[in-house]
Amino acid sequence: MTDFEATRAMFDLPEGVIYLDGNSLGPLPRAAAARVAACVTEEWGGMLVTGWNRAGWMEMPRRLGDRIGRLIGAEPGTVVLGDTLSIKVFQALAAACEMRPGRRVILSDSGNFPSDLYMAEGLCRMLGDRELRLVAPEEVEGAITDEVAAVMVTEVDYRTGRRHDMAAITAKAHAAGALAIWDLAHSAGALPVRVAEDGADFAVGCTYKYLNSGPGGPAFIYVAPRHGERAVPALSGWLGHAAPFAFDLAYRPGRGVERMRVGTPPVIQMAALDAALDVWDGVDLARLRTRSLELTDLFIAEVETRCPELALATPRDHARRGSQVSFRHPEGYPIMQALIARGVIGDFRAPDILRFGFTPLYIGPAEVVRAAAILSEVMEGRLWDREDYRQRAAVT
Amino acid sequence: MTDFEATRAMFDLPEGVIYLDGNSLGPLPRAAAARVAACVTEEWGGMLVTGWNRAGWMEMPRRLGDRIGRLIGAEPGTVVLGDTLSIKVFQALAAACEMRPGRRVILSDSGNFPSDLYMAEGLCRMLGDRELRLVAPEEVEGAITDEVAAVMVTEVDYRTGRRHDMAAITAKAHAAGALAIWDLAHSAGALPVRVAEDGADFAVGCTYKYLNSGPGGPAFIYVAPRHGERAVPALSGWLGHAAPFAFDLAYRPGRGVERMRVGTPPVIQMAALDAALDVWDGVDLARLRTRSLELTDLFIAEVETRCPELALATPRDHARRGSQVSFRHPEGYPIMQALIARGVIGDFRAPDILRFGFTPLYIGPAEVVRAAAILSEVMEGRLWDREDYRQRAAVT
Repeated sequence: MTDFEATRAMFDLPEGVIYLDGNSLGPLPRAAAARVAACVTEEWGGMLVTGWNRAGWMEMPRRLGDRIGRLIGAEPGTVVLGDTLSIKVFQALAAACEMRPGRRVILSDSGNFPSDLYMAEGLCRMLGDRELRLVAPEEVEGAITDEVAAVMVTEVDYRTGRRHDMAAITAKAHAAGALAIWDLAHSAGALPVRVAEDGADFAVGCTYKYLNSGPGGPAFIYVAPRHGERAVPALSGWLGHAAPFAFDLAYRPGRGVERMRVGTPPVIQMAALDAALDVWDGVDLARLRTRSLELTDLFIAEVETRCPELALATPRDHARRGSQVSFRHPEGYPIMQALIARGVIGDFRAPDILRFGFTPLYIGPAEVVRAAAILSEVMEGRLWDREDYRQRAAVT
Repeated sequence: MTDFEATRAMFDLPEGVIYLDGNSLGPLPRAAAARVAACVTEEWGGMLVTGWNRAGWMEMPRRLGDRIGRLIGAEPGTVVLGDTLSIKVFQALAAACEMRPGRRVILSDSGNFPSDLYMAEGLCRMLGDRELRLVAPEEVEGAITDEVAAVMVTEVDYRTGRRHDMAAITAKAHAAGALAIWDLAHSAGALPVRVAEDGADFAVGCTYKYLNSGPGGPAFIYVAPRHGERAVPALSGWLGHAAPFAFDLAYRPGRGVERMRVGTPPVIQMAALDAALDVWDGVDLARLRTRSLELTDLFIAEVETRCPELALATPRDHARRGSQVSFRHPEGYPIMQALIARGVIGDFRAPDILRFGFTPLYIGPAEVVRAAAILSEVMEGRLWDREDYRQRAAVT
């Protein structure tokens, strides 16, 4: 059994499904069901409130933070779990703005995930003296001026799968006196990330995509150790306090990234994440990356050969590609519904993107070829051209 | 079987334990384990990403919001789930400050839960022109002046169990042109709450105490319908957007309380909450309150008779009492450890508070008398006077 056959066996995937949407919600790791059940029945049910100590619940945000830290190249003790990605974006941005008081611009790009932009917009409105400036993804580096307090970008574009150059943008930001905040939503678990080596100031990400923590799993935040004692939390919750159980009336930030904790952490979701991270224990990220590029190359080749009416939206250059492949088509929505009805689960992103995520943990070349074949049947037979496939669901 | 015997049968409580800490973490409702397992295995495992539509995950924050709404006297469609209580406090405060631009004071009291104060402190620092003013709990009403933008208090004091008069303080706030924000952490599920009738502008609360949703269950927020379209979200996340799946670059707030959603909701924790709320379906809150006062009266009487060295910290007046009883003692910490070692689980709050929560759903008079008897054994025999009981755990 190869190592990817071993990881494949760790997931519970429905019969007859080719799952190419792990970049939206990762599938269920087999061990997660038992781990969650134990958390609910033995820990919550059996230990009641004493679980905070006896089951180590209170330590989970930093213990799991370190497990994720290994996957993103972070120093030990610099990553902590909690909240949602949007909240973590807000925390990083607010801290960065406070660290660069004279600079009015938050720079991002039009390919960033909208919630990151919305959170920045809300922050700018509160602060009054800041402005969110958006440029095209290719123009970020050139737009870093001495007005910029922070560059906030998502490393891999959620629609196109285009990958920014983290080292180059971070270096450019630092040269201009700005800070660099990286959203790793489509990077953590998708490819090797080196936040420390590349000099990121803050990084944030979610755990329910390539890390397979389940629907609504908590987010994470990384704070570079050089900023650990200087970043002031805007969302100054009690679990980020230096001594939460002293119940002081005034806030004193905790040590380093600990201060980015806010409220009571979601223990049951963290139990699922803990089991999901076990899958990663034996995984070599360089090998994962090689295999991921093989799979996305193969899918591009298969689809371009069979489906000339689909336009590739993902960079061909390996260095500029994440772990997904996207094609554009004006009828993308019904095409995706037709695919899902045939057991190939990808997703659609407005206005015209068919998005397919590839993760070597449970997807191999056979599924890639089969998915492309089914896609070509759908396209050639215009099998997507049905009224029911055009009906939009609440979540698209 | 009386109705409270019926609810008692819905909980899984360990043999030999008298659980008087449901005001910190409610016990496991029997149905929650199966409901969580179904969410993990059948929904996440079987439906994968399509669970957002097919299993109704995306609707859960408002569906469960309505279920909680019934317990706090809220109008349908005015409560939504998500995040932690600290985040919800921040959202309510930020919206209130924006609605009262000329007023510089956020008024709270020194008995409020520290995290509420810390979040207010962080907000004031960001806004620059606001100030958090703290008075003693009894002085809140008298301190409401025309400088006050918002009064933010927790209805029931987490340490003493003292209850504020929601109707009176809200009326006083409104008469002074201020808004009233109520933290219901120790109210929701503990006693009848009438946010609509009492005129609350915003209310927030957590679900893992008297509502029994499990460790780290999501928080809730209520926005009075009259403010629904005016409250501007400071934490403007994508799921609070009017059309989250349009992926617009600019934020447009959703309708009413929907705009207080931020990021992807914690589906597995919400599944536990959903099962926990089933327990409440047949519960009459007026009867719950009567029974709760009988239990707390009984505990006060039993302990005062047997343990003269413990000083009651909770009001005797029913109208001023929540659903807990607290006693002060300088050796409160080891006394509580000795009690826990004997199967009576309450908790300690610095500097000297022994705290006991009573919820009629699973606690009856027999447990109350037995707990008081064990407490008196511990006190009379100085059984608490041991080195190991003095050693502080991480979570106290």
